[in-house]
Amino acid sequence: MQFSSALLENAVNEFAKLPGIGKKTALRLVLHLLKQDAEMVKGFGDIISKMRQEIKFCQRCFNVADADICSICANSMRKQDTVCVVENIRDVIAIESTQQFSGTYHVLGGIISPLDGIGPDQLNIDTLAGRVQKEHIQEVIFALNPNIQGDTTIYYIQKKLQPFHIKITTISRGIAFGGELEYADEMTLARSITNRMPVESYMSNG
Amino acid sequence: MQFSSALLENAVNEFAKLPGIGKKTALRLVLHLLKQDAEMVKGFGDIISKMRQEIKFCQRCFNVADADICSICANSMRKQDTVCVVENIRDVIAIESTQQFSGTYHVLGGIISPLDGIGPDQLNIDTLAGRVQKEHIQEVIFALNPNIQGDTTIYYIQKKLQPFHIKITTISRGIAFGGELEYADEMTLARSITNRMPVESYMSNG
Repeated sequence: MQFSSALLENAVNEFAKLPGIGKKTALRLVLHLLKQDAEMVKGFGDIISKMRQEIKFCQRCFNVADADICSICANSMRKQDTVCVVENIRDVIAIESTQQFSGTYHVLGGIISPLDGIGPDQLNIDTLAGRVQKEHIQEVIFALNPNIQGDTTIYYIQKKLQPFHIKITTISRGIAFGGELEYADEMTLARSITNRMPVESYMSNG
Repeated sequence: MQFSSALLENAVNEFAKLPGIGKKTALRLVLHLLKQDAEMVKGFGDIISKMRQEIKFCQRCFNVADADICSICANSMRKQDTVCVVENIRDVIAIESTQQFSGTYHVLGGIISPLDGIGPDQLNIDTLAGRVQKEHIQEVIFALNPNIQGDTTIYYIQKKLQPFHIKITTISRGIAFGGELEYADEMTLARSITNRMPVESYMSNG
């Protein structure tokens, strides 16, 4: 692509760095912004920069937060003794959108996957065990993608939590094996939280 | 979608304002930026704001420019007596990418379309006539999308330029009728510039 303006070219190149955005899409987005009010475009840039600079990760559950503790952990209306274990922030957003869960979360920051070189030490697993011990957690619910890595992670963490004799459940298999949690429709995801099942029976059915 | 961070939510909403970007795509882009270096994300925001604030439109051809005159108009290697008339900036970029045209451009800023309420007065047509008169233009080449609006625009401008007795051509109909210029492959577009034809024969074939 040939540009007669370096300003335009730089802006297109910045957008084209984003995942799933090619040069033509980038150009379409930039030409859209070019038609907008200058203040509005400045606002766009500022909000994105501010987000990256000021966002924090909750010191308790590792969810994204505007303060040291995220708004879910800080909300006294939520059941602080129930923890839903998820792979990443997207899964928190997906589950929150079902409005079926009133406990807290624990974001692992990934999933045990030896093929990708990701072991338990790189995930927020020790801090989960720490929370279970210190915070008198009554129930840990696994909401991980239903695939081999998810099952491995559940198995590993379950073993680790066994000494604490708490209730350990997993969301029901309403979601097809091999599917991706974040793309499930809200109804399926909502039901799979409501119909959660003990991990022992899940493992024996698997 | 439920967010536990206002910073994240604002950033997602900003991206979702862009055309063709839904909430899920916006979230994917924002989470990508969240993983990047803070300086890099600030650079992204700054480059976009700077583009909108500093970009100009060429006073001669209405192409995007970094100065009062765009780099194509300012380039003395290009044939200043040949003007290619296009609908918008995207078409300039598409034709420049073929590397088959060495003249200058004139960006109309739209196309005559009575149904959309766009008449000749809203387009840069008078300035084109002014250029033909003052700059001793030898040839005007129409590179407009081959559809009813494009043909109407060609017909109108052609009538307006008749008193100047210059060569008036249009890119050949290599592009299927009803197609969009910006999505044509470079080979087709390049040939249609090389094989341009007099407007009279084009109109009688149409």
